[in-house]
Order: sequence, then C-alpha cells, then structure tokens
Amino acid sequence: MIKIYKSTEIAREDIVSREMTAAGVEDVVADIIYDVRKNGDEALCRYAAKFDKIEMTAADLIVPEAEIEAAWEQMEPEFRAVLEEAAANIAAFHEKQVRNGFAITQKDGVVLGQKITPIARVGLYVPGGTAPLLSSVLMNAIPAKIAGCGQIAMTTPPGRDGKVPASILAAAKVAGVNRIYKMGGARAIAALAYGTATVDAVDKIVGPGNAYVAEAKKQVFGKVAIDMIAGPSEILVLCDETCDPVVVAADLLSQAEHDKMASAIMVTPSEALAEAVSRELERQIPLLPRAEIARISIDTGSKIILTRDFAEAVDIASEIAPEHLELMCDDPFAWLPRVKNAGSIFMGKNCPEALGDYFAGPNHVLPTGGTAKFSSPPVRG
Amino acid sequence: MIKIYKSTEIAREDIVSREMTAAGVEDVVADIIYDVRKNGDEALCRYAAKFDKIEMTAADLIVPEAEIEAAWEQMEPEFRAVLEEAAANIAAFHEKQVRNGFAITQKDGVVLGQKITPIARVGLYVPGGTAPLLSSVLMNAIPAKIAGCGQIAMTTPPGRDGKVPASILAAAKVAGVNRIYKMGGARAIAALAYGTATVDAVDKIVGPGNAYVAEAKKQVFGKVAIDMIAGPSEILVLCDETCDPVVVAADLLSQAEHDKMASAIMVTPSEALAEAVSRELERQIPLLPRAEIARISIDTGSKIILTRDFAEAVDIASEIAPEHLELMCDDPFAWLPRVKNAGSIFMGKNCPEALGDYFAGPNHVLPTGGTAKFSSPPVRG
Repeated sequence: MIKIYKSTEIAREDIVSREMTAAGVEDVVADIIYDVRKNGDEALCRYAAKFDKIEMTAADLIVPEAEIEAAWEQMEPEFRAVLEEAAANIAAFHEKQVRNGFAITQKDGVVLGQKITPIARVGLYVPGGTAPLLSSVLMNAIPAKIAGCGQIAMTTPPGRDGKVPASILAAAKVAGVNRIYKMGGARAIAALAYGTATVDAVDKIVGPGNAYVAEAKKQVFGKVAIDMIAGPSEILVLCDETCDPVVVAADLLSQAEHDKMASAIMVTPSEALAEAVSRELERQIPLLPRAEIARISIDTGSKIILTRDFAEAVDIASEIAPEHLELMCDDPFAWLPRVKNAGSIFMGKNCPEALGDYFAGPNHVLPTGGTAKFSSPPVRG
Repeated sequence: MIKIYKSTEIAREDIVSREMTAAGVEDVVADIIYDVRKNGDEALCRYAAKFDKIEMTAADLIVPEAEIEAAWEQMEPEFRAVLEEAAANIAAFHEKQVRNGFAITQKDGVVLGQKITPIARVGLYVPGGTAPLLSSVLMNAIPAKIAGCGQIAMTTPPGRDGKVPASILAAAKVAGVNRIYKMGGARAIAALAYGTATVDAVDKIVGPGNAYVAEAKKQVFGKVAIDMIAGPSEILVLCDETCDPVVVAADLLSQAEHDKMASAIMVTPSEALAEAVSRELERQIPLLPRAEIARISIDTGSKIILTRDFAEAVDIASEIAPEHLELMCDDPFAWLPRVKNAGSIFMGKNCPEALGDYFAGPNHVLPTGGTAKFSSPPVRG
C-alpha cells in the first residue's frame, strides 16, 4: 500500500531526500576500471565470462555489420515504421536545440566570438536486463548525430546467447550509430573512456545504467565528459481534485513498474483523490505483467503527499525536482511558470509520461535524484 | 631551457598526455568532506586554524557588508573604472550566450517545448595564494548574474590577517555577488555542497582551485553540479615563420609565470623561430618578477614541437586541445575552421592571451588538460 503523508506533518528534508549509490560499489568499480586500463581486451573478455557467462574473444566485441542489417530485415514493417516515426519526432525536437556560434565587433576592430564544435567521438551505454531499452538508443544517438559528432559508438551487454537483441540493433541503425560493442557494466564504461586494442576511446559517455555503470561514469568523469549520474527513475504526479484516479494510478504505475527502486510520488491537495488513487493502485497492480516489481516500488520508494493547496503542491514538486513531472490540472499552462525544477514536464490530464518515454520527441534521458535543480536533458552543441 | 621535439620523432601520445591529480589527495579530501558534513561550522573553524593559521568563529565565516563597502571605497578611482569596464565587456559577451526556450506545435494540437530556468543558488570558488585572482570573480559571477541565478555566493581563503584582499571584495561587488565566505580548500567546497548552519548549500559550484579543490569538486559532483575539474593552466602558441620571437616568448611566459605546474607549448614548422624563441625565453625569464616560477614551468611542463608544416601544427594543437590557443600567423581566420579543440582561441599575431584573461569579454574559466575536446567555457542557461 502506498504511504500517505500530510505536508504539514512531514519534514521538508524527508520529502526531498533520496539515497543514491549503494555502499561497496565504489571499490569494485575502481578495480574494474584499473583492470581494463591495464589489461584491455583480455580484461573485457574475462569479465564477459565472469559476469555474463559468455565465452568471447576480442573479435567478438564488435557486432558485425551483417548482423545489424539482418536484424533490420527481420523486423516487421510496422515496427520499422514506428521506429522511423519516433526517430523523426526526436530529430525534429532536437533540431530546435541547435546552437550556433556568433561574432561581435567592437571599437578599434576588435572581434570577439564563440565557435561551437561537435564532440568528435561519443559513446552510448544501453542497459540490457529485463526490458530492451531501444528508445534509449534513439534518445541518445539522434541528438549526437544532429550535433555532428563524427563517431557514435554504442555498447550494451549481450544476452546469454552472446547476442544483442535484434530490436536494439534495428534502433541503432535508425539512429545512425556507427559501431556497436557487446560490453556491459563498469567494464564497458572503462573501455570507452580509456580505449583498448579493439575499443576506440571516446570523448563523452552518455546513457543510463545500473549502480555500477553510474559509479563508473562518475569515476571516469574528467577523463571524458559524461551526461549525468543517473539514479533510479522517478515520476511525480501533481493532481488537482478534478483528476480521474484511474488515470493517475495508471500513470504512477507506468514508472513504478520500471524497476524495484523506481519512485512514484503523487502530490495533491485532495484527500479524497489520494484515497481513491491508493485504492486504485491496489486494484491495478495485480493486473500488470510486471506486478511484482510495481508492488515493491509502490510500497517502498513511493508516496502520496497531501498539501494545503495546489500552489504548495507545485512548490513541493519543484523542491523534489523529479525526473518526470505530470502537471495534471485544469490549466497546466497557468501553473507552468511556478515549476522551477523537473527533467521533463507533461502538461495536463491527458499527457502520460509514456508518450515522452518513447515517441513524442523531447529527450527521455533526464536528470534524476533532484539533479534537475542544476542539470538538463541532453542539449546539443 | 625549453625542450624542442620534432613531430616526426615523438610519439603522438607523448605530445598529448599530461598527468592530472597528485596521489594521496583523494583520501585527504574525502575525510575533509565527511568531517564538514558531520561537524559543520565547527569543522570549518578547526580547519581554518589548522591550514590557514587563523582563529575564527562561525560568525567570522561571512564577510560583513560594511567590509565590502569599505573595500570599494578604498580602491583608487582609476582601478574602479577599469574594473567596471572589464565587467561591462564580460557582460556584453555573455549576453550573447543567452538561450531561450521554444515551443513547437504538431498535428492534433500537440505542443512540445523547452523551458530554461536559471539555477537558484551557485557558489564561486576564488583561490587565494600568490596573486589575487580578481578577474576570476568577474568571469564566474557575471555569467551567473546574467543567467538570473538567485543567489551567488563566493568563497575564498582569507590571508594570515584573517581578511579577504580588498580588491577581491571590490570585484565581488561589481560582479553582483550576494554573499562572501572566508573559506578555502576542500572544506569550502564541502560546505557549499552540503551546507552548514552558517553556509547555505548551493546547486552548482564553479571556479578554479588547487589539486585539493579540484578533487573536492570531483567528489561532490552529483550532489551539486560543477563547471569542470580544472588542472594547471596551459598556453599553446601556434606560430608560422613570420612571427616575432620576442612577442612569442613573452606570450609563452605570460602563462608560464602563473604557477610552477603551468605549461607553455609552442608548435611551429620553423626551426629558426624555435631556436630564436628558445634564446629569447632565456633572455626574458630573468627579467620577470616571478622569474623562479617561470623558470620551473618552462624547464619542466613546457616544450616546442617542430612540425612538417603549419597544417600539421594546427592538427597537433587540436589534438592537445589546450586551454588557451594563440593562432599566430598571417591569416588566422583562414586556419580557424581547422582548429577543432581549444578553450579559447586568440586570433593573429597581436592578440595576447592576457587580453582574454582580464578584459576582452570572453570567459577565462576554460577547460584544461585536454578536456576542451568535450567541454566548453561556462555557458549560460
């Protein structure tokens, strides 16, 4: 059952704080990075055997061009069309973010200006695991492509069969990825940062991952750029009393089912709605294919916060600075200026987060853990 | 004596690489951060006694408003005028970097857009030490002010008299800093990141510092944003055979005298110029007020690289990705497109780096250590 708190009865600190990395991860990751720097491809293959239970040689680290083409051919035409439409939406949005240099002239012939250069080589991490995140491929690669990055490498852990899912390969093709590596975890980040005989070093590493990937990105930061340190995913739904509890519960669950550490927060001044949503969550959870995961994240990392009024709800949301914010009320555009921090904002009662996750166009790689206070979705240039 | 290498006889890796942080710094900094998080103001005062040999209480951590006003009044009118002119130049340049949100509409009433929000609270670190870096105050604070940051805090280590140099206070006033703390080193970064009873936590920390400050910024990254991990300063002078060795040597020394770890690199196809500059460095070094420092950085971290032609020189410069690049040749604008990576580029034979350090307008807080490959001077928005 989701916990319900009153804003007047819970410390602001307890509302805002969330714990980040697990203990012990730091040293494990440091050892892996050191190993990959020192032993290169040999270390990569050794870790593949150890962690992924796959025997591979250095030659297996790169997905052959023919395998990518074959993956594309085996996709259903409808799937390919949707993938291409999503890619077009994402490209259209990110084209608007293009930044250009400028020159200004001053007295005495002084010329000052700014020159914007694309990063030469970028690396995208795409998690493996319970659901192939092919939308992550599009969201990470397409902005880099539009920015003019010369080489876009992707790395993802192969399955037990030693293969990368065909849908991921198809997405990489649509997104313009130049090279695909079969590597996961901290070792993949180390290889991209420092290079090996087989893996080309990159200048920037982007993309989500588990606690080990996040820690590895933190440790190689400085040698390369990184997009952010991504934590568990979050949704915060701001609701006024006019919202439909069935829709609100479904939206909370859309994030809660992502992973056990995901967090779904509802902030509302309506006690009646809070209770209705709580009941509705209990009704919907057993119906989900990923019910077990949703159960855990709703019971542990999630909550409902009852506020005095909607204005306070918006302010609390800004302070939490969630990854995803749904502004479910009658006039979302009137409230928008009051929202200070959020990775992505979904406007109104009929704009579910899932739209943004896959298809609409704005990026879904977003700041988590309150980092929306100081960072943004990937911006090109 | 500066070392001269031929590009054909030195491994590209040896040209590009430079060592970063000193060993042992990591653990010392982690302990300080832990201490400040746990013990707050008490830890800050304890470290002030230990490292700065100053007895202070928590109340002394903040510079009183009256002290700032008094500092301003005691500055000579000419100095104040120059400070204000520099600030106006910096503001004019950074105004051009303003980014705005956008909205796009699609079929079926879909509206997508981007909302840009200033960071609420930023902290600037200003190093103490051998030369008061008042230009750093302007370069860091003015862009934050233009971006609309609500609170701009500054921290700098006080001198042995427990005071911040008056020129630094005057610069802070011109730049629009809201609060000034007397704290230096890793403890200052910890206090800004986590807050204490006296120090307000910020969302982003910027500004240069020594190895301890750089390491502390790295460790608090994730809790707050940081601008970059700054290493020792660097100049790379690209010269064709028409350059005046007297001017080239002076420009190399302008950076070499900054600190013993600074690096001054000249890349040229002209062997005659290389030898003339080497001789000229030996003549000019003893004339400098900071001759000892320049001597060390010229003899250790500096070099001249002889290339086959000017095109190769430009490519090597791009690969080194220096903090400062002087493009000293007859037609710098013709070569500019070939320059891929540099923090700041100074165009032509009469555009010394010092202009950019203090006065011209573009930012002087620049990516060092090759990080210009993936990062930029501070950009607003």
